[in-house]
Amino acid sequence: MDPVRVGILGLGTVGGGTVSLLRRNAEPLERRLGRSLEVTRVAVKDPSKPRPVELDGIDVGTDAESICTDPEIDIVIELVGGVDNAEPLVRKALEHGKPVVTANKALLAERGNELFRFAGEKGVDLAFEAAVAGGIPIIKALREGLAGNRIESVHAIANGTANYMLSRMRTEGMEFEDALKEAQDLGYAELDPTFDVDGIDAAHKLALVAAVAFGAPINYQALHIEGIRSITREDILYAGELGYRIKLLAITKHGPDGGIELRVHPALVPEDTMLASVEGVFNAVQVVGDAVGPTLYYGPGAGADPTASAVVGDLVDVARTLGASPEYRVPYLGFRADGMQEPRWAHVEEVETEYYLRMQAQDQPGVLAQVTRILSEEGISIEAFRQKEPHPGDTDVPVVLLTHTTKERAMRRAVAAIDQLDVINGPSQLLRLEEVDAV
Amino acid sequence: MDPVRVGILGLGTVGGGTVSLLRRNAEPLERRLGRSLEVTRVAVKDPSKPRPVELDGIDVGTDAESICTDPEIDIVIELVGGVDNAEPLVRKALEHGKPVVTANKALLAERGNELFRFAGEKGVDLAFEAAVAGGIPIIKALREGLAGNRIESVHAIANGTANYMLSRMRTEGMEFEDALKEAQDLGYAELDPTFDVDGIDAAHKLALVAAVAFGAPINYQALHIEGIRSITREDILYAGELGYRIKLLAITKHGPDGGIELRVHPALVPEDTMLASVEGVFNAVQVVGDAVGPTLYYGPGAGADPTASAVVGDLVDVARTLGASPEYRVPYLGFRADGMQEPRWAHVEEVETEYYLRMQAQDQPGVLAQVTRILSEEGISIEAFRQKEPHPGDTDVPVVLLTHTTKERAMRRAVAAIDQLDVINGPSQLLRLEEVDAV
Repeated sequence: MDPVRVGILGLGTVGGGTVSLLRRNAEPLERRLGRSLEVTRVAVKDPSKPRPVELDGIDVGTDAESICTDPEIDIVIELVGGVDNAEPLVRKALEHGKPVVTANKALLAERGNELFRFAGEKGVDLAFEAAVAGGIPIIKALREGLAGNRIESVHAIANGTANYMLSRMRTEGMEFEDALKEAQDLGYAELDPTFDVDGIDAAHKLALVAAVAFGAPINYQALHIEGIRSITREDILYAGELGYRIKLLAITKHGPDGGIELRVHPALVPEDTMLASVEGVFNAVQVVGDAVGPTLYYGPGAGADPTASAVVGDLVDVARTLGASPEYRVPYLGFRADGMQEPRWAHVEEVETEYYLRMQAQDQPGVLAQVTRILSEEGISIEAFRQKEPHPGDTDVPVVLLTHTTKERAMRRAVAAIDQLDVINGPSQLLRLEEVDAV
Repeated sequence: MDPVRVGILGLGTVGGGTVSLLRRNAEPLERRLGRSLEVTRVAVKDPSKPRPVELDGIDVGTDAESICTDPEIDIVIELVGGVDNAEPLVRKALEHGKPVVTANKALLAERGNELFRFAGEKGVDLAFEAAVAGGIPIIKALREGLAGNRIESVHAIANGTANYMLSRMRTEGMEFEDALKEAQDLGYAELDPTFDVDGIDAAHKLALVAAVAFGAPINYQALHIEGIRSITREDILYAGELGYRIKLLAITKHGPDGGIELRVHPALVPEDTMLASVEGVFNAVQVVGDAVGPTLYYGPGAGADPTASAVVGDLVDVARTLGASPEYRVPYLGFRADGMQEPRWAHVEEVETEYYLRMQAQDQPGVLAQVTRILSEEGISIEAFRQKEPHPGDTDVPVVLLTHTTKERAMRRAVAAIDQLDVINGPSQLLRLEEVDAV
């Protein structure tokens, strides 16, 4: 049979990795598909730039749009990134009846609903395994493998850079800024690290994961997002003393008041769980289904080869069903367009969990009494309490406590009141604790 | 659209779980498929036996074969188990153009090649996610999600019963027989535990995993299988002192001499790895691909609900492509029938790894000299050596050593020679050590 002709938009890390992988594994890929997958055109910004990948036989140009409209192209891989850049290209390809494979989480988190609807009208695929958790086939697991389940919760370590930094802060006793600098020096973090450290990248991924988990339209706006900038070396140390590690988690689950929670934030995770043991740039996604129970998926969350693995996995799926009726293909988000349901998205104040609270207290009698009175008025009971040594030269002493399960709304009111106390130098550090099911 | 009419053969644990799950999650399943999945017929041995599952509206009878030939049935789920019982039923269903979903690892390990060939001739699906690692969608991950990769290795904890027993032997200091009795009392192990403790169940699963990983025909005969009956409390203790846990692993990988290894045996795994931390009846599968690197999939390896999760996942896939050309469907083993390749399967003596050797030595000078001389003659160097306290009343002392990487052939010759020494009371315990990649 004729080769499947693939056009790639963008030849950065992932694009280069994809071209290399398709060449290196051309033989087993053809054994899978019965056709070869051939990259015939690539669009780049600067065709004269030297590339670490062999491009002979590939038409390298600058006109991305013409790839999207080229009748000689069967499938388009979108790797230009960005939202406003990428959207018209993806739309153009779909409009011309070409399935699109993308790794662009920002694009889908923000414009996915419209793009999936448009792809549906055109009857072509829009695949995005590479947009979430790098090489881990988590979208496929949620969308197909666990299709028999009602998903109860997803807890993901979805940003390798933030996880690397938190790992280094713990194992090396680094402060945030030093860990960030190291991550930047190693190429894990961008010069502008906002997307990674402020939780935005993880939030983009979570928006997609929630849609696939619950058969809901993508709703990035419903997300509660906190990054890791406020996490100190001490927080990690104190959490460790209490038996926890701090991870940037992306969480979606059924909340106690019936809404679905969507939140990205640092959280304390019991150190004897598999999620806690995920270190460095790795990602892991824990999924609890009503039938399957707790499952976990672990692997490299970024990088040329792992992401290319996801792109090519999608490419094989899409190539296999080229020309098939859409009825025979897996719906974009696992649920048919007419089967999607917008749930009520929970407000973060509905969350019920245990909390870690670190306060800077003046070293004088009666502080604890004032703090516990406020907590008690909000119905919050204390599970553990530690008064730490003051930093050299400091008059304040760090006071750390863990609460029993409480409502976030009450906890926030309590912390606001505590930070008003004369004896507390606010703002205090409030972190959620997540009891994750899997060992 | 009309419902998809499903017939189930066998209503044991998994069959009951499947009926329940299809009812409980009928609504989200229909949102996925656009059709309902309706169990219309079930075949059981004894229809008068009370069942813990609601069967109203289902035709419950004893004639399994008539379900396989019933024109009113669209898909058959085979859960009768066994090889000789199940094969003619599966064949009959395929012959009548009905796709089959099965959890029967023994059947596919032993007769899978013929059955897949027959299904191919009939142009219908034969799906088996539930046959491997319970609810973990590992077949889908290997067959589709990681399709871009050349798989380098798979290390699986694929038998929950054996893993439970080894966990209990470690944490409770139990001997094998006590752990077995406990597992039997809890219903994890059968009265005849052969399949679980002798590695046969794990081997059936590995035969399937290797076929999917490498695009090779299933070759159960090529497997090297050792169970866990020889593992003592002391082995687990000594391994722990050296920083390892003992796990029953199912391993397939490219061997050093170019063959593909297929082996199930207890092995020492570094205790700081994710595989080592899999405890109790859980399963985990570590897959290393050339592009993705190390990935790991973790979850419940057995039980009514988790296995039903896998059955229903397959059912959704199969139902979606009912009537589609086989060209549009994923090949049974991920590779097309004309793309399968029989590799050279490595003999276990080709294995190269480190080894744990426990000997019972007479407590007298010169023993170590004799042992090390034999090892040295085989070119085997020692990484660690421990002489243990003798058991109370014993004259022998346990001597434990770890070797550096060596060829199994040489190791076996050395152990045979060591066991001939007057000062050694053989047979000695020889276990392989597996360096697994993922953290």
